[in-house]
This record gives sequence, C-alpha cells and structure tokens, in this order.
Amino acid sequence: MTSFKSFLPILGWAPSYTRSDAQSDLVAAMIVTIMLVPQSLAYAMLAGLPPQVGLYASILPLIAYTVFGTSRALAVGPVAVVSLMTAAAVGQVAAPGTPDYLTATITLAFLSGLILVAMSLLRLGFLANFLSHPVISGFITASGLLIAASQAKHLLGIRAEGDTLPELLAELLRGIGGTNPYTLAIGLAATGFLLWTRKALKPLLLARGLRPRLADLIAKAGPVAAIILSIAAVIGLDLTEKGVKIVGAIPAGLPPFALPSFDLGLWQHLLLPAVLISLVGFVESVSVAQTLAAKRRQRIVPNQELTALGASNIASALSGGYPVTGGFARSVVNFDAGAETPLAGAFTAVGILAATVFLTPLFQFLPQAVLAATIIVAVLSLVDLAAIRRTWAYSKADFAAMAATILTVLLVGVEAGITAGVSLSLVLFLWRTSRPHMAIVGQVPGTEHFRNIARHNVITDPTILSIRVDESLYFANARALEDAIYDHVADQPRLKHVVLMCPAVNAIDASALESLESIAHRLASAGIGFHLSEVKGPVMDALQRSDFMAHFTGQIFLSQYEAIATLGVATGPEATGPDSSALVAPHPGARQRVPMSSPAAEQGA
Amino acid sequence: MTSFKSFLPILGWAPSYTRSDAQSDLVAAMIVTIMLVPQSLAYAMLAGLPPQVGLYASILPLIAYTVFGTSRALAVGPVAVVSLMTAAAVGQVAAPGTPDYLTATITLAFLSGLILVAMSLLRLGFLANFLSHPVISGFITASGLLIAASQAKHLLGIRAEGDTLPELLAELLRGIGGTNPYTLAIGLAATGFLLWTRKALKPLLLARGLRPRLADLIAKAGPVAAIILSIAAVIGLDLTEKGVKIVGAIPAGLPPFALPSFDLGLWQHLLLPAVLISLVGFVESVSVAQTLAAKRRQRIVPNQELTALGASNIASALSGGYPVTGGFARSVVNFDAGAETPLAGAFTAVGILAATVFLTPLFQFLPQAVLAATIIVAVLSLVDLAAIRRTWAYSKADFAAMAATILTVLLVGVEAGITAGVSLSLVLFLWRTSRPHMAIVGQVPGTEHFRNIARHNVITDPTILSIRVDESLYFANARALEDAIYDHVADQPRLKHVVLMCPAVNAIDASALESLESIAHRLASAGIGFHLSEVKGPVMDALQRSDFMAHFTGQIFLSQYEAIATLGVATGPEATGPDSSALVAPHPGARQRVPMSSPAAEQGA
Repeated sequence: MTSFKSFLPILGWAPSYTRSDAQSDLVAAMIVTIMLVPQSLAYAMLAGLPPQVGLYASILPLIAYTVFGTSRALAVGPVAVVSLMTAAAVGQVAAPGTPDYLTATITLAFLSGLILVAMSLLRLGFLANFLSHPVISGFITASGLLIAASQAKHLLGIRAEGDTLPELLAELLRGIGGTNPYTLAIGLAATGFLLWTRKALKPLLLARGLRPRLADLIAKAGPVAAIILSIAAVIGLDLTEKGVKIVGAIPAGLPPFALPSFDLGLWQHLLLPAVLISLVGFVESVSVAQTLAAKRRQRIVPNQELTALGASNIASALSGGYPVTGGFARSVVNFDAGAETPLAGAFTAVGILAATVFLTPLFQFLPQAVLAATIIVAVLSLVDLAAIRRTWAYSKADFAAMAATILTVLLVGVEAGITAGVSLSLVLFLWRTSRPHMAIVGQVPGTEHFRNIARHNVITDPTILSIRVDESLYFANARALEDAIYDHVADQPRLKHVVLMCPAVNAIDASALESLESIAHRLASAGIGFHLSEVKGPVMDALQRSDFMAHFTGQIFLSQYEAIATLGVATGPEATGPDSSALVAPHPGARQRVPMSSPAAEQGA
Repeated sequence: MTSFKSFLPILGWAPSYTRSDAQSDLVAAMIVTIMLVPQSLAYAMLAGLPPQVGLYASILPLIAYTVFGTSRALAVGPVAVVSLMTAAAVGQVAAPGTPDYLTATITLAFLSGLILVAMSLLRLGFLANFLSHPVISGFITASGLLIAASQAKHLLGIRAEGDTLPELLAELLRGIGGTNPYTLAIGLAATGFLLWTRKALKPLLLARGLRPRLADLIAKAGPVAAIILSIAAVIGLDLTEKGVKIVGAIPAGLPPFALPSFDLGLWQHLLLPAVLISLVGFVESVSVAQTLAAKRRQRIVPNQELTALGASNIASALSGGYPVTGGFARSVVNFDAGAETPLAGAFTAVGILAATVFLTPLFQFLPQAVLAATIIVAVLSLVDLAAIRRTWAYSKADFAAMAATILTVLLVGVEAGITAGVSLSLVLFLWRTSRPHMAIVGQVPGTEHFRNIARHNVITDPTILSIRVDESLYFANARALEDAIYDHVADQPRLKHVVLMCPAVNAIDASALESLESIAHRLASAGIGFHLSEVKGPVMDALQRSDFMAHFTGQIFLSQYEAIATLGVATGPEATGPDSSALVAPHPGARQRVPMSSPAAEQGA
C-alpha cells in the first residue's frame, strides 16, 4: 500500500479531502484559469504552433499531474523556455504550419514523457544536478532575450525569422521599414498596459483599500483585460483591414486524440532535444515545487516528480499538445490564491476545457501583437542581469560557465548553449580539482588545531613538515601532490618527518595510491619518514584493502596533534627512545610546540 | 642565460663533460645500439612500414633529444604501443606499402611533434595527468595482447589482417591450414630462444662466474644472436625456396630528407590520433624518465620533456621516420649500462647510422618470423594481469575504467580504447563527487578531535548536530547536502543548532552557496541555528566576496571544538546569557562534553 501510495500520491491526500479544501482549490483554479488562457495561446505561438495547441497542452497534463504529482501547488502547462526549445528542435525537422510540424511536436512531447518516466524508473533524477545554478540562470536569461527578440516582429507586424540573436536583429533591421503602424500601436499599448498591471496596479489597488487577495486577482487579470480590449478595438476599428494580423479561426471543441510518430529517424533527430527539454523542464519544475513546499513545511519527492512530469507530457502528446512542465509564475499564483491540494490543477483543467469549447470563437480577432506583448512582458521578468554581476564577484569559474551559456544560446542556439554551459562547468571543476590547494600547517597555540602557516599565527617544528592537501587524491592531481612534497622537502634540510594531513582527502584512487607509494619510497631513501594523519574512515577502509599498508613503513595518526606529539617527542634533541607507536594518547608535556624560529630544544617535551 | 639553458639543457651539462663520462656513454651506446637495431626493424614492420624506416626513426630523433632532453638516461625511438597506434591511424587513410602510407606516417610524426611543442609552449603537460594509471596500465596490457595477435601471422607464415582481437583471431583460424612449417619452426625457435635469453641466460652466466655487466650484455644481445642465426639458417638451408618470408632488400644509405604532407584533409584525419599518440608517448616517456632520474637523485622537467619529444618527432618526420617516444626497455638498458649524459643517445644514433649505411645488405635474408618473435616476446612482458587483480581489489571504479579500456582496445581499437577509458574515469570521478560521504561526528574523549559517531566512541550533545561533509560543495552535490541535512534535522526534535564541519570542503561554488543560503533560511524558520566550522582560508575568502555573509545569521568557528564549546554552553540548561560571540577561546570547563545518552545537564559547563 505504501509503495502504491508513493507511486500514486493522490491516494495519500484524496481520502482526507475536505469541503474547505475544495473551496480553496476552486478559487485558486479560477484565478489560474484566467491567467493560463492567454498564456497558453501565446506560448503556442512562440512554439510555432496553432493557438489551440497551447490550450490542449493545458488540460490533460494537469489531470495527469493531479494524479501523480507530489507538489500541492505546482501548475503544469506550456512555459516560455520549453516553448522556445520546442520551436528550435522541431524547426530542424519540419516547417512551421505543416502537419509534419504538428506531428513532430507531439512526438517530441511523447519522447520527453518517456525519457522522464525512464529517468524516474532508473533513479536518474540526479542528472539534473549537473545543470549548475549559473548555467540554468544564464540559460533562462539568454532564452528570455532570445524569446523577446523573436516576438518583436509581431509588435512591428513584419516578418523576421532566425534562430540566433544576430540573425533576428539583422532581420528586424531589414524589415523595420515595413512596420505596420496600427500593429505597432496596439503592441506598444498592450506592452505598456501589461507592465503597468504587473508593477503598479496592485499597490494602487491596495492603496485604495482593496483587500490584498482581490487586488492580486484584479492585477493578475491584466492579460485578460488586454485581450478583451484589443479584440474590441480590432472589431470596432476594423483593424484587420489596416493590416493588423489576428490569431484567426480557432477550431472549438475537445482536444483531439493524437498519436506520436514512430518513425525511428524522427526519434533520432528529436532525442537530444527531448533529453534537454526533459532536464530543463524537470529542473525548473522541481525548484519551483521545492520552494513552494518549503513555505508550508511540506516536502516533494523529486523522483516521483519525474514520473508526474513524464505522465503529463505523455498526456499532452496523446491530446494533441506539446511539451509541458511546471511553470514558475502560474505555480506562484496558484499557491498565493490558496490552492490546498493538486485537485486545484484538475479544476483548472476543467476551466481551460470550458474555454476551449466555448470561448475560442471570441479569440479569432485577437491581434498577434497582443500575444507577443504577453510573452515579452513575461520573459523579460526572467532576465536576471544582477545574477551575472553576483556570479562574477563570487567565482570566475561559475561566471565563465554562465557567460558561455548565455553567449552560446544567443549566438548559436538553445541546445548548444546548455551543452556548452554544462561541459564548461564540468571541465572547470576537473581543472580545479587537478590543481589542489595545499597548505603547510602549524599548531594554533593553546589548541590541538592545525592551520595554514601563511594565514595563522601557529607553532611549527623544523624537523617535521605538516602538509595538508585540500582535495581528494585522484589521477588528475596525484602528480601535483608528488611535485609539491618533493619541492618542500628540498627546501628543508633539517627535516626528519613529513606528515600528510588528510582531513580533506575524501578518496584516494589507484593512481594516487601509486603516487603515495613512490613518495614514501623516495622520502625513505632520503632518510625522511612519511606519515599520514586524520585519514577518514572510508579512505582507511580502501587503503586496508590494498597492499599499500604492507609496504608502508610510516605511521597513520588519528589526529595531526597526535602526530606532532609522537614524532616531535621522538625526534627532538631530548628524545630517548624509538618512535612511540601510533595512536597512543599524546604526551601531556608535548602540548606546547616550539615556534618555527627557535630551536627545537627550547620548549620541547 | 638561465632561460636559455632551461630551453637547451645540453648547455647545462656539455661544458662539464669529462673523459670518464664519454667512456661510460660510449659503452652504454654500444649496448643500446645492439638492442635497438633489431627492435627498430621489428617495430617498423608492426607499424606497417618498410624496415629501414625503423632505423631512420632511431637516428635524428636521438640527436634532437640529446639537445633538448632533461633525462640523462632516456632512450627515444620507435616503441611497440606507438607503432601499433601508428598502424591503426595511418591504416584509416592509406594502404600499407603505398607511397601514400609513407607520407601519412611522416605527416603523423610531424603533427605529433607540433602538438608536443604546442603543449610545451601552452604548458598543457598536465593534460597527461588525465590518463589515470589504471587506464594506462589497461591500455598497455590490451595493446600488448593486440600486438601479439597481429604478429602471430608472421610466425605461421599466413595472411591475417584486422584491427580488433576477434577479427585477428578469426583470420588466424581461417588461415591456419596454410601454415608454412619452416616459418613456424623458425618462429617458434626464435621465440623460445628469446624467452630463454630474457629469463634464464643471465642467471646462468652469473652462476658461471661472469661479471654482472658482461652477463647482462650477453643476455641483451639475444635478439642479435637470433638474427644472425636465423639469417645463417635462411641462406644455408635455402629457406626462401621453402616459402619462408624474408625482410628483402633494404636500401642502404643515409636517412632521406622528407617533408610531411600539408593536405588539410589529411591533417584533419590524423589530428585525433596524433593527439593520442602524443599523450601516450609523453606519459610513457616521462614515467620512465622520472623513475630513472629518481634512482640517481636527479630531476627531469616534464614541460621541457614535451619540447624534447616534440623536437624528436619533428626530426623523425624530416628524416623519413615515424612517431617516436622514450622506450621503457631501452632506457633501462641505457641506464644499467652506465649512460651518464644524454650524449649516450647521440652515440647510439651514430651506431644506428653506421648499421643503416653498412649492415642493411645483411638483413635482406632476415626471416619476418624472427622479427615477429622479437615483437611478441617484447610486448608480452608489457601484459600485466596482476595489475588487473590488484585494481579490482582496491577500487571498483578504477577497475571499471581499466576494464573498459582493455575491452574497447581489444574489441574496437586503440584510439577508441583510450578515449573510453579516460571518459569513463572522468564520469566515475564526477559520479563519486556528486554523492559525497557525510558523517555525523562527535568529540573523541579527552581530545579536541571530532570523528564519525558510527566509527568511533565519541561524545555528542543532543541539542547540537555536528555534520561533516567530505567533499567540496559544487553544483553536482549541493542538493544531496540539503537533503541530508533536512533528513537528519527531521529525526532530532531536541535540536537547537546544526554545525556543518567543513575541513574537507575545498571549494563552494555558486550553486552550493545558494544551497547553504536556503539551508540557513529553512533551519532558521524552524528555530534552529545553522553554523559552519573549520572553513578553510580560500573558501572563507570566497564567502567574503559574496553577499552570503551579509545574510548569514549563524557563526563561523575556527574549530569544531570551539563550536561545541560555545554553542553547548549557551544552549545547555545552565546557559545564562545569549550566544557568546564566535572565535573566542573555548570555556575551559566546557572541555568534557556529555555523552549522547545522558542529559545535557549531567556534566555541562
């Protein structure tokens, strides 16, 4: 039963569903429906699809998520970035407006659904972790700019096709002479109105004494008002005669039953885009869901989210839709409007279905410029230039990955951009770990703690070199460790012992093990002892599995303090016996080590 | 002058060259020459080239290394693995025996030389570190098996072409009926003789009272004896009439002056192989040179070795040779024979030159089966099956990379093998770092040291969770950290503080920084303090560059001991004031923390 419930989370919350839950969910659903209808039409246009496809993608997928999802507030459906990625992917294999384009889109959604379900079954959700924050942030910012540029043509009423920012800008410049003034006027008016409702309307209403929830609802209905007003203007002023492009006839009725293509060649072409769409969609969706869940002390189950998003995409494909995921803006609205359970999503689906069946004739006269304005206002809020500055200040490596993502998205394309960002962030990570930070450490006076001699005022012993390596030891950095130790040893003629302090060594691979063996061997032939300290449990276990311990003549100390206490006593001028065995309690008198500058005799045990 | 000397190491040792050095170098050169002549002929055959090309590749490259090299014992020239890689690479673009094949080989050597010089100028030698020991070891073992299989046809006197082990074995089985008994007899006799001189002859001579050096010299001359005996047999018994294949006429004379092709298409085809040949050659050469240098407390300069090997390969190309590198067997012989300076290499070059000019007519009747026996005996000593077992015992990840390398080399090819091995070892490294080891830690009684509660008998405080994460925090593992902390917190209702102990955190990237912020935020809203301890210098510097510190309400402690002392005092039942500020000396009475099972009051400050 438990595993059944974890596969069908609806079984967990549905039995305790209350009338009060239903009221909250219904209100939230109404608000989200009002927001989702214009968005669905707009994003379908962005994806190069007929407007009704956006509505289809907002019905069955929501029902699927209600059954399988673990977030109580996530609202799935078409989103801007995934719509752009869909256009880029399907544009490679078919021309927009053709039946082939529609088939390819459905196939893409189906493939993406299969990939998400497969990732869930194989527990591959962790793959999404390889999309770092700077890469995601850069990707969304660049996608936002690219989307805004791709929609600018609708504001001008001209044609401008292109997959990259330079192409789009060049086309816009070439066509700008043919701008339709009526289209431009409607487009700019809609953009201004939408920005105003987004930024200024809610504070204004609140200042006039409206209840916050009502003020929010009115502000969120901005796009609906823009749509109604612009439809009225088109009909009233007969703007189609003046060259203002409208959405045109939208077939009313239930979503169709659709089947994806099973052409293997097409699958091959769409495989990589489907993987990227799945990953990007999953990352966006899970981060929204987690943020909202945390606010109410709820938890989501990322692996089950993969199943839920997979089911949503398969549902989208089978009802003639296109790839969907959890959207940021609509989920926040759903949450703020008080959605208590995933049933709010199902109610929203009913709302959209009603709009699809009854309202589509009204949308016929909707100007494309108004949809474009809706998209532009939505995506520009995704552009986060402050994040670029913040990342630059914090880490040049993270910034490089972010910059590579942004530039590649803008100059080459969305898929290339995300691939470049992920590759570069991995290469930089490997590069960093291949040049580990190493520090010569000494004892912090009055404690058993050892820190970098270059940063802290510490006590050292000229016969003992305590070196701390700040990285797991593996093939890429094993030689760097050898070189560093040999260099330090060459500088210190009085040296009797080298202690490699390993609190930061989380693993030692076979290559590094050979390096340790050759370090021990070389130091031994120079009469210097080589020891380890603070070796972690899992690393110690691995060493004991190898024949390293059989050859190793040095000692392994539980702590650096113990190492210094033991070795310092034995090698100091007053030393009377052989090295005391490792892992004994430190000699109390050995606590205060001598400073580096004074001879070892001065304060020794 | 110093930089001049570091570019031309010959200027460092030549001025102090003594007569005694010259004697030692001359003896070493004589021995290496005797060894190198048959090897050069054999490896040229392995590379699909006329035998004299092997000799050409053993003259000018040695002079170039003498001028530029930093190792006093390294002997460069054709080696088995690189010969196999050459055959695999050039076989893709031309048929063996054609002038195109020869041109492509020369071009490959030239390209490899350019790549090595470029790597030196760009200080890219560290790239070789990404070839892990298990990958190199697996690559050499598999190459040895593949080479042995490719030479078996010469022992049988049949034809058998193929790039993979299954292909070669299938061809050998198909052709085995056509085995020439005379060829097989000569081949097996030579193989047996060579194995005997290698394993049994030297101990035998030593037992008879010979001086070790002379015994060694006689044993090393085994291949020469095999060659002389087999030539005598071919002429005396008229074996060519009986179908025994011989090397045939070798043009006598100086190496020709040759130019590589500058056909860009060819360069493109040969680029990846040239990179891999350069890397493999560099790794093999540097590890031999370092091993030998360490024995005499000398050092080599890896970056200068890149220049030297690059110059050697360019010299090889310009004198009609093929890719060369520092060979293991001949360098050890050179070292053991007493070579004092790189001039031994130049003397060897003169020896080979003499052989090329005067001795080539003698090699005409040399049976191919004897050359094949030379190769097989040499490469089978490279096959290290014990390393496979050792690697399996030590680390499954290293074993996986090694096994992938071996299987891909044998089943697909040498280039694919090395690529597969490197890729898999990187993926496994990323996989491991993406699932960091985390430990709940407690105080080791009587010390200030904190270790894993699951492995050590330690003292803990039920109001403080001390968690140590054993990995740098970066995008791939940031979420794993969040999940682990939330899970542990949910289990411990009495918790007041979480201290993340960071001695193993060598870096925190932007993604992980966001995770830390959200952990702090979520714990704060649950009334739990979130603190860090033992944050390293470089990490602290980075945190201070971000705005993390502005929002962070917790404390950052120099040591975990201090964290427990401070937080334990403040939150224990007897706490009288607010949290004492971070970085103060620990309260002396707080030294003994209470065991986990007893209440905090029992022994508290």
